[in-house]
Amino acid sequence: MLAVDKQNSDYLYRQVIDLITQNLESGTLRPGDRLPSLRRMSRQIGVSIPTVRQAYVELERQRKVESRPQSGFYVRHRASNPMVNTSPGVRPSAQPVPIGGRGLMERVYDGLHQPGVVPFGIANPCMAKPAAKALHRTMKRVMARAEERSLSYAPTMGEPGLRRQIAYRYLDSLGSGVDPESICITNGGQEALLLALRAVAGPGDVIAVESPTYHGLLELIDSLGMLAIEVETCPEEGVIIDALRQTLDSHPVAACMFSTTLSNPLGVSMPQRDRERLVQLIDERDVVLIEDDVYGDLLYDDARPKPAEFYSRSGNIMTCGSFSKTAAPGYRIGWLLAEKYRDEISRLKRSFSCSSGLLQQLTLAEFLASGDYDRYLKTLRPVLRCNAQRMSAAVARYFPAETRTSQPVGGCVLWLELPASVDSEQLFDEAIAAGISIAPGLIFSPCDRYRNFIRLSYGHPWTDETEDSLRWLGETVAAGA
Amino acid sequence: MLAVDKQNSDYLYRQVIDLITQNLESGTLRPGDRLPSLRRMSRQIGVSIPTVRQAYVELERQRKVESRPQSGFYVRHRASNPMVNTSPGVRPSAQPVPIGGRGLMERVYDGLHQPGVVPFGIANPCMAKPAAKALHRTMKRVMARAEERSLSYAPTMGEPGLRRQIAYRYLDSLGSGVDPESICITNGGQEALLLALRAVAGPGDVIAVESPTYHGLLELIDSLGMLAIEVETCPEEGVIIDALRQTLDSHPVAACMFSTTLSNPLGVSMPQRDRERLVQLIDERDVVLIEDDVYGDLLYDDARPKPAEFYSRSGNIMTCGSFSKTAAPGYRIGWLLAEKYRDEISRLKRSFSCSSGLLQQLTLAEFLASGDYDRYLKTLRPVLRCNAQRMSAAVARYFPAETRTSQPVGGCVLWLELPASVDSEQLFDEAIAAGISIAPGLIFSPCDRYRNFIRLSYGHPWTDETEDSLRWLGETVAAGA
Repeated sequence: MLAVDKQNSDYLYRQVIDLITQNLESGTLRPGDRLPSLRRMSRQIGVSIPTVRQAYVELERQRKVESRPQSGFYVRHRASNPMVNTSPGVRPSAQPVPIGGRGLMERVYDGLHQPGVVPFGIANPCMAKPAAKALHRTMKRVMARAEERSLSYAPTMGEPGLRRQIAYRYLDSLGSGVDPESICITNGGQEALLLALRAVAGPGDVIAVESPTYHGLLELIDSLGMLAIEVETCPEEGVIIDALRQTLDSHPVAACMFSTTLSNPLGVSMPQRDRERLVQLIDERDVVLIEDDVYGDLLYDDARPKPAEFYSRSGNIMTCGSFSKTAAPGYRIGWLLAEKYRDEISRLKRSFSCSSGLLQQLTLAEFLASGDYDRYLKTLRPVLRCNAQRMSAAVARYFPAETRTSQPVGGCVLWLELPASVDSEQLFDEAIAAGISIAPGLIFSPCDRYRNFIRLSYGHPWTDETEDSLRWLGETVAAGA
Repeated sequence: MLAVDKQNSDYLYRQVIDLITQNLESGTLRPGDRLPSLRRMSRQIGVSIPTVRQAYVELERQRKVESRPQSGFYVRHRASNPMVNTSPGVRPSAQPVPIGGRGLMERVYDGLHQPGVVPFGIANPCMAKPAAKALHRTMKRVMARAEERSLSYAPTMGEPGLRRQIAYRYLDSLGSGVDPESICITNGGQEALLLALRAVAGPGDVIAVESPTYHGLLELIDSLGMLAIEVETCPEEGVIIDALRQTLDSHPVAACMFSTTLSNPLGVSMPQRDRERLVQLIDERDVVLIEDDVYGDLLYDDARPKPAEFYSRSGNIMTCGSFSKTAAPGYRIGWLLAEKYRDEISRLKRSFSCSSGLLQQLTLAEFLASGDYDRYLKTLRPVLRCNAQRMSAAVARYFPAETRTSQPVGGCVLWLELPASVDSEQLFDEAIAAGISIAPGLIFSPCDRYRNFIRLSYGHPWTDETEDSLRWLGETVAAGA
């Protein structure tokens, strides 16, 4: 690299950018290469460290380089092709349907728990050591302090201390108050969905879901004897409000179950204007909205958007949250903002499972109050964002060129559209036999759609095995396509 | 007391018995008095300690005295009047009914969680320190060993180690094998009941229940939109099989939910011959039996009877168990012997709550394997039996003479029939205002029966407050009767 004259800061800042850009264009710096450290660059061209950092950040904004936590700046890989909105509006054939595909779902879950399998199939962020250590430490403190009480029943709606902490978080991040009394602590987000759905709908009722949607939601709708109707989404913005309006015009929908923030598997977040339109529509039609907000704390960038219920006048909205995606899946602790359905939810919670684990509730209350939870999120989010870029790059490198992917703005899953000829159920079987779990597209729809789609999780630590497994998947897809 | 001559052992043994009996008859020893210690008696009358012990045990068999753990032998109190079977057979009016009484149930639960309330209303044994200490120690070991893994999802059906331990226990106590693969770990016994019921029945279906029955079962039937039909019981032997036969003859019953061992609130256990007749009837009519066996480990005396499913040829039986009544209610860990319904139960469990808490499962597996659980049961059972006698004596002492009680052979609750004029809902309100929680009889029936009944728990450590509260209750009942 050339040395440059000392000049004023702005000029030097441009010099750094030009220097890196030239090296990128000439191929001296290639995808995956590490940029010189701030200190080294500073010394080499006689520019202050803050100026070099400023230049690197600008290059990151231009998507030429990327920062990796505790490591430095790297030349970005070519990213995979993004999905774009090709079929807006409701398909004419959208009808309420019962849920099928039980056999495949069973095989997917069996695969996940095979020992030693590469876990692309489970949408759960890696458990980094800091959280495990901090949680264990906190739990030991709770056991020492609460003694026998920590073994007794929690109140039906949950430990007041944890409900207060959750309410504080909404106040902190959203500036809007939530009454701790309207929060019900549940056995993970899944039970929150169960309670919310059972509270407002019965067998035979029609539930509107995103297409594609979380498979656990479809299983739940099935278990309660209800029907699902798909609502079209746009891969960049989630549910298409006009499509929802058409659905509500044509069918008697009892409830909508959507993820307005970080839908699964798309990983997108609904823009503000659509949130307002959604709530307006819901209020107009007197339909209940159940928000699945379990990934909300894993947005990479922006401030967390307010759950829909903060806009609603009717209050026909419940929001489900969870600590399974951000702290400890094995604790089985989630929550439901039950609001005006509080009494009904309390009755259902009691009759379905009495109450949730007290020791975990006491531990999480302390984990939140101490700031440990937020500190952990601060280290988790950049790791996930970095993994997202790596996975997108690996798809670009190993998968057929016509493969398209979602552009997740948070969470830990990538949604892939493979060449049309690929059968992801068959791919799933081959992958499991090779020790790799994936989530085949079919399980994300009640209508036999997404046969050539798969969902891959990048929530686990990135290793050579991760890279090798992605190469194997890409080559297998290419060979079959 | 008189000194006696040294003679042969059998003669001396009779001497001790006669001496105590004379003192009892003369009123020198009165109800509640402690008998001289074995050592003192031995020294005083020149008899060996084993001979004195043998004599005391014979007096206990004659129900003249009672032993209290770690304390000695005491003169028995007069016991309360036992309930007897006054209305065998189905009442002509027995019809399937929806469940009512939500408001009262709500008040009962609210009352339970008021701080400082005397907890006669909750059917849960005291948490003795040894179990809390041992469980905490075990959990710390698990955390140290399993590290991050202990925070991750358990398999849907549960941690294999715990399922094996539960299967071993059936093998040990019953000599009959259970396949660990057919056991599903649940969020307490309540979720086991939910899964079992949902697997075999749907909205509008009729479920046969004991009369009186556990209120949480009635709430569950209500939450699933089903109807309950009561089957008469006999206070000494539980469900009357001929009454059940009449019910099955007259109504399309989808499932029976019974506690064949230690029903709640009666605390009785079905005799062997009735168990066989029950299973035969179930098999004949192709009706499903769901056994609520959560108190089974708390039988005071006899070897644990086999759950009904060990007699069944059809396999139309599921059995629900729990650690909430014997180890840690707050862990929320129970189980379901799902047998031939295994696949359906797995699907339901996944869609309702994904899986149960892993850390608690690992801890209980080790708690069972180490023998700590059985050691704890051995100390818990005699404490509960002793409390049962004390409570029966207190009822005899403080309540109106026409009060009758159940004769529990295990568990931790006493079922009281008060004078016919007593309204237990009103008594509940007065008791809560006085800082005492009780369970009013109405919540144990879907048919507005048992208005003059209450259930009292003796599962908590016996203190002066316990005695005072029972006196208050008895006097209040007497004043209102």
